[in-house]
Amino acid sequence: MPDSMTAKKSFSAKDLESLRPGLIDPWRGEGDARAHRPSPPELSGPDHLVFASQQEQLDTALARRASLIVAHQKLRAPEQVPAGVRVFKSPHVGLAMAAVLPFFDDKLSRFGPRGERHASCVVHPTARVAADVTIGPFAVIGEQAVVEAGCFIGAHVVIEKGARVGAGSILHPQCFIGGDCELGRECEIHPHATVGSDGFGFAQDADFRHHKLPQLGRVVLGDRVEIGANVAIDRAAFTETRIGAGSKIDNLAHIAHNCEIGENAVTAAGFMVAGSSKIGRNFMAGGAAVIADHIHITDDVMLAGRSAVTVDVPEKGAYGGYPLVPMKDHLRILSSLPHLVSLRKQMARVLKHLGLHKEEQ
Amino acid sequence: MPDSMTAKKSFSAKDLESLRPGLIDPWRGEGDARAHRPSPPELSGPDHLVFASQQEQLDTALARRASLIVAHQKLRAPEQVPAGVRVFKSPHVGLAMAAVLPFFDDKLSRFGPRGERHASCVVHPTARVAADVTIGPFAVIGEQAVVEAGCFIGAHVVIEKGARVGAGSILHPQCFIGGDCELGRECEIHPHATVGSDGFGFAQDADFRHHKLPQLGRVVLGDRVEIGANVAIDRAAFTETRIGAGSKIDNLAHIAHNCEIGENAVTAAGFMVAGSSKIGRNFMAGGAAVIADHIHITDDVMLAGRSAVTVDVPEKGAYGGYPLVPMKDHLRILSSLPHLVSLRKQMARVLKHLGLHKEEQ
Amino acid sequence: MPDSMTAKKSFSAKDLESLRPGLIDPWRGEGDARAHRPSPPELSGPDHLVFASQQEQLDTALARRASLIVAHQKLRAPEQVPAGVRVFKSPHVGLAMAAVLPFFDDKLSRFGPRGERHASCVVHPTARVAADVTIGPFAVIGEQAVVEAGCFIGAHVVIEKGARVGAGSILHPQCFIGGDCELGRECEIHPHATVGSDGFGFAQDADFRHHKLPQLGRVVLGDRVEIGANVAIDRAAFTETRIGAGSKIDNLAHIAHNCEIGENAVTAAGFMVAGSSKIGRNFMAGGAAVIADHIHITDDVMLAGRSAVTVDVPEKGAYGGYPLVPMKDHLRILSSLPHLVSLRKQMARVLKHLGLHKEEQ
Repeated sequence: MPDSMTAKKSFSAKDLESLRPGLIDPWRGEGDARAHRPSPPELSGPDHLVFASQQEQLDTALARRASLIVAHQKLRAPEQVPAGVRVFKSPHVGLAMAAVLPFFDDKLSRFGPRGERHASCVVHPTARVAADVTIGPFAVIGEQAVVEAGCFIGAHVVIEKGARVGAGSILHPQCFIGGDCELGRECEIHPHATVGSDGFGFAQDADFRHHKLPQLGRVVLGDRVEIGANVAIDRAAFTETRIGAGSKIDNLAHIAHNCEIGENAVTAAGFMVAGSSKIGRNFMAGGAAVIADHIHITDDVMLAGRSAVTVDVPEKGAYGGYPLVPMKDHLRILSSLPHLVSLRKQMARVLKHLGLHKEEQ
Repeated sequence: MPDSMTAKKSFSAKDLESLRPGLIDPWRGEGDARAHRPSPPELSGPDHLVFASQQEQLDTALARRASLIVAHQKLRAPEQVPAGVRVFKSPHVGLAMAAVLPFFDDKLSRFGPRGERHASCVVHPTARVAADVTIGPFAVIGEQAVVEAGCFIGAHVVIEKGARVGAGSILHPQCFIGGDCELGRECEIHPHATVGSDGFGFAQDADFRHHKLPQLGRVVLGDRVEIGANVAIDRAAFTETRIGAGSKIDNLAHIAHNCEIGENAVTAAGFMVAGSSKIGRNFMAGGAAVIADHIHITDDVMLAGRSAVTVDVPEKGAYGGYPLVPMKDHLRILSSLPHLVSLRKQMARVLKHLGLHKEEQ
Repeated sequence: MPDSMTAKKSFSAKDLESLRPGLIDPWRGEGDARAHRPSPPELSGPDHLVFASQQEQLDTALARRASLIVAHQKLRAPEQVPAGVRVFKSPHVGLAMAAVLPFFDDKLSRFGPRGERHASCVVHPTARVAADVTIGPFAVIGEQAVVEAGCFIGAHVVIEKGARVGAGSILHPQCFIGGDCELGRECEIHPHATVGSDGFGFAQDADFRHHKLPQLGRVVLGDRVEIGANVAIDRAAFTETRIGAGSKIDNLAHIAHNCEIGENAVTAAGFMVAGSSKIGRNFMAGGAAVIADHIHITDDVMLAGRSAVTVDVPEKGAYGGYPLVPMKDHLRILSSLPHLVSLRKQMARVLKHLGLHKEEQ
């Protein structure tokens, strides 16, 4: 780690005690320990903060004398802890991390002095940008665009004409928010994400020439949507491509025109969904899952990585494979595939044994 | 829809009558209706323009009193239409949309005042840029580059040294046109598309070290080529990576060095083709189809989504799967896959029944 | 080819003689021939340089009188060569290309006058940028960032706070190097590559809401790493996402947080690896191969295109398929798949023949 990454912030046992009682509570050790950086258990040491959801992680952190340890309450409480070490317990280590780690996160300092607009940015006179918005070099904010309070707009971001960015959103450098598109509050958009490219629509004539169908709609992201790096989300043909509040889309996804994804989706990298498909709430997709066009997927569906969905999914549950089947069938088919070769040999033997092989085509 | 997206343009029954006789002709209703926005049938209303290729769409639009309706001529002509509604018929609703919808498309206004060059753009003194080209903030046009008449060059576009952009092309913000690459007339390139990155070529030595093979060629796009967001097209090793006139490449595609794609291709998102493959005219690929290197695919080939092509395709037709097979075989294999598990059980039973199971390895 | 691409450089037989004895040695012909451009054999002619690793290529180049030919030493030496043609022999044509072709590569001229910083670039006063670094228009170099000697920083590149770029690296336009990330010496990063986006980490609460886990680590690339266009590499949660020296990652890859890829990897386009997976040295992956999270892959593993790795790979070798199996099994399974349909029919016949079909569910 370079110096610039260490000792950005520090956090004390007292801070932990008062942060989120019920989520993080004192368990073992005494006095006011202090940590300057969070670490994984195996790299931890004095002055480090460690989260432990497994017994081995807790034991390792203790052995390495991490100053602050937040451990799952189901783990064995340490009998005694080294001096200078404080152990806290939590019913949900992940949520504890989500509560504590922002204090160590220096990310927003990359956007330049808070609340400053770099002299080089181009903000259209008709754009409405809240006074406290931080804007990086060469950012472009178009005609009648709106950027609400507390946003961070990175270097080289383009926010086109008529687009709206909700309060507290973070737009990393070089991302693109197309004309008339709308982001809810506290969205986060990563570099090279494209929000509002044209949908892919053409009419084919008798000579196989493709005539562009103008894409007149837009993209609407709900509150707290996160869009990964190099994602492409197309604007609707007439209406809106929508991603519901709280949904998180990992890198290199493609979301086609007119799609709707419900609230709280989590899609791993390489997710692709073709035009006009509708996906319910609480959707989860493993890596490189793809969905055909005009598909309906109900609420609470989980797809295994590499799934391909070509039919509607009207029942909640876990699915996988191509063709898509319930998850347990998917795993059985997967484990059967390597036996396909011997299955063919066995069949040849059986047919011969039965004298049926001559009928074979 | 925000106000900024509505009422941009209006279109009257008279406009429709005169636009493309033969493609769009009066059918039912009287007088001069007028629409300010196009809508899908289910969201339409007075003042809206609707296209209907199915009976249900036409019925819905009529019930909602959409002012202008363009319906496929094969549908049942409405017996009577509400006052203020005009129905037109068309032999090809898609082409009718392609003819009418550009009048409602405000896209080019996102590029700033037409024909203006933003003061911040950097155009090399040796570049030849036609007088009417619109150039957005921070666009960079390199040495000896050429941009022909009527182009729109978005904010942050980079056109490197020696590149050429044909007349009437639209380069959306943040796209990249690499050195010496060439775009035909009326191309459209979406944000974060990369045209002319290095091909992926290395020579491996005895120590498994990879030595870069310089990529000295370029990319040539024909007229009317559209390239989606976050697409990467590599320059050739020595010659040209080529995409033929009228081809449309959706988001997140990869086209490797030396590839040639013929005229009028349409490839859905996630298309990837490895080095030196040649694809004929009128090619179509469903989502996430991939093609290995040095493959030849003849004219008029269609690939199902998720196909993987590892052998030449010398016969026109529809194909799918991995390995690639004719489409109807692909669909049969897909529908057989879920039976693989029971097939194994059945085989075990048969072998046991016949006393052959002891021979099994 | 446009004029601007030809005759950039020339290379003579004398140059070839002295360049790398042992790798490139005189074989046939006399006098000092000279070439102004390299070509593939089938497009070659006088004044061209050709590399031939197959007999047909050598014969073609001779027939077309290419001035300089570098042929593999295993080929049949030409009995006589036309006047003005010189033929050299090499034990490794690929390495010969890697040695010779850089003399014809004009790539760096796209970055503007060597050693100049475009007046528009924004370099933070605390950044340390070597005096000879070439910087294009609108490049942004953040607080305390370091750019070592001999680098080329393209237009619109963003190097965030605290990032380091090793000597001799080439950063093509519009790429992104996130805060605190580090590139070794002689790296090359293509347009729209994202190095250092946030890892994809969330804690899910009882209401299925996803709470962001700050991503506090960074990305570290070794020396001579090449990253393709539109690639996304996420920073680690706490530590480092690492790609070893000499590794080459083709376009549109996704490398998740905490991953480690060893030295000298070569991954074709569309490679995706999920969080915390560790891959050894000399890894090779065909196109669109994907790897699940927390997977360990040992040294010297090769994956076929479209492989999906969901279990550890502790033995070196070639593998393919999903589920992953040794390469020869993968190829057998692939060739068996099209027989699945007839296998089902045969089974139905066998079961009927044996009177077992009634037991079927």
